[in-house]
Amino acid sequence: MSHDDDAIDAFVARILAGSVRAGARAMRLVDDREPIARDILDRLYRHTGRARVVGIIGNPGSGKSTLTDWLVTHYRQQGKRVGVVAVDPSSPFSGGAILGDRIRMNQHATDPGVFIRSLATRGNLGGLSRSTNDVVAILDAMGFDVILLETVGVGQDEVEVVKLAHTSVVVLVPGLGDDIQAIKAGILEIADVFAVNKADRDGADRTIRDIRNLQMLADTAAAGWLPPIVRTVATTDEGVDALVEAIAAHDAHGREAGSDAAERLRRREAHILESLIRDRLVERMAEALGDRATRDALLDRLVARETTPYAEAQRVLDEMLRG
Amino acid sequence: MSHDDDAIDAFVARILAGSVRAGARAMRLVDDREPIARDILDRLYRHTGRARVVGIIGNPGSGKSTLTDWLVTHYRQQGKRVGVVAVDPSSPFSGGAILGDRIRMNQHATDPGVFIRSLATRGNLGGLSRSTNDVVAILDAMGFDVILLETVGVGQDEVEVVKLAHTSVVVLVPGLGDDIQAIKAGILEIADVFAVNKADRDGADRTIRDIRNLQMLADTAAAGWLPPIVRTVATTDEGVDALVEAIAAHDAHGREAGSDAAERLRRREAHILESLIRDRLVERMAEALGDRATRDALLDRLVARETTPYAEAQRVLDEMLRG
Repeated sequence: MSHDDDAIDAFVARILAGSVRAGARAMRLVDDREPIARDILDRLYRHTGRARVVGIIGNPGSGKSTLTDWLVTHYRQQGKRVGVVAVDPSSPFSGGAILGDRIRMNQHATDPGVFIRSLATRGNLGGLSRSTNDVVAILDAMGFDVILLETVGVGQDEVEVVKLAHTSVVVLVPGLGDDIQAIKAGILEIADVFAVNKADRDGADRTIRDIRNLQMLADTAAAGWLPPIVRTVATTDEGVDALVEAIAAHDAHGREAGSDAAERLRRREAHILESLIRDRLVERMAEALGDRATRDALLDRLVARETTPYAEAQRVLDEMLRG
Repeated sequence: MSHDDDAIDAFVARILAGSVRAGARAMRLVDDREPIARDILDRLYRHTGRARVVGIIGNPGSGKSTLTDWLVTHYRQQGKRVGVVAVDPSSPFSGGAILGDRIRMNQHATDPGVFIRSLATRGNLGGLSRSTNDVVAILDAMGFDVILLETVGVGQDEVEVVKLAHTSVVVLVPGLGDDIQAIKAGILEIADVFAVNKADRDGADRTIRDIRNLQMLADTAAAGWLPPIVRTVATTDEGVDALVEAIAAHDAHGREAGSDAAERLRRREAHILESLIRDRLVERMAEALGDRATRDALLDRLVARETTPYAEAQRVLDEMLRG
């Protein structure tokens, strides 16, 4: 026991010293759901909370990956160490895109101040959030100053992931913006900063006007922060400096804004805590449903309408939960 | 008790007779999470399984709502009764889009053979799926022949909802298709039929070619069904007849395809069962975390790093779960 504890402490010390090998190993332990990962994370946690987590949210094709790439370059020029966590929940079945877009990150591959990690969902609701939280905690403990959390779209799972960010950048492109449906209330409430990317395209002015109109309707400014709209052209780095400034301004606002900022930090912790609990509950549910044969037999009875999901759910819950 | 049972049986009988008022009332009971809803659904369940559930999945701006509208018209012309369930999980915070797009369904508003229901997520992972399942079960029990389940995007939550469909139509538009990233593995695995909508626009051929190429790479045809690609122009009804045929062809394939079809029906029941369990687990988690003051005090201790989410998650799980 004490031997294990010593070994874990030594390993944790290496992560805290910023060892890329130790950090990467910890992430693999998290991926493999090794029980020891929880002990490691539990010890790392008190050393976290220093990194600024910036969410970069955009649909496929919005250019958010290229934008993330440029943000890395800018933060590196400021002397900051940067972690990138790319979350792709678009496929719960196969675990990601067919074409990995991490290739373009090559230019940072040899930079020890940059750590890139891709995560794919495993089809468990909550599982993706937990993995993301754990990886971000490890990067935070390793001493990375900025962690860019890149995620696709605005579905519920992506919104979940974004709850971890101190600042969320929503990337929009002209052309989607000319359909008002493309800008939903959810985006408005997530965004601390808007990047209108591909701003050299027709329709950029209209997209900006649409966002402004929606902001006025939604009265977002009431919270004391009107999300700025930055024009970017990620292919040429245009506007990325302004985006970096907008992110810094939001961060400064968050640090000074009293109870509002405290509430945001609380929400962040609530998200981390609930992801952990939910993840374990889903595991326990799978256990309660039994092995493949047991489960299939039950499902066949449901298909045949010999029993109902309402009755069976109650049975499983009675088995799982305390009185 | 027996009085209640009689009353529930009478109410269930009215739903089974197709009463719109009784069905709508049952849906409200589901919405309000009235305990009696479970008894009603439990009794309805044996009468479900006859309706064909067709998922219509597309990004905002893809025109899927207009397409759904036309599908309703076509199914009505075939003499079928049609239920529409519009799911909008784009905002877990405010519960839906700013602009309700149900307005355009006006033309069906006075048709007793059409029942339209909008659902918005309440921010609970799993909650949306459960509500959708319950509403679809009620429509099924009411005797609707076709249930169109319209949902936004391809995030995890939307994918969850789609598990309820017998046939899933993925709606794509030219222009998104010219970025290969827009077509992810997840879409390929969800789609039983592709609709390339706004097919009068430039780039439709390219989008179709992109889908075909990805299908070849992904070897989807191995499952015995190569998802057809139908061109539609939803504003003018062009191609909607072909889409109706493609959906019918997939349905016929599903009914004859032996073990493959059985597995799909099993997955459907698994989804319904797991949504119910998960929904209740999330409720229990909220109870275990205590009232607002208790919860905030815990979160403040987490923010201050006086405790860790790993330790607190374990505590909550120990409290919730049986040994």
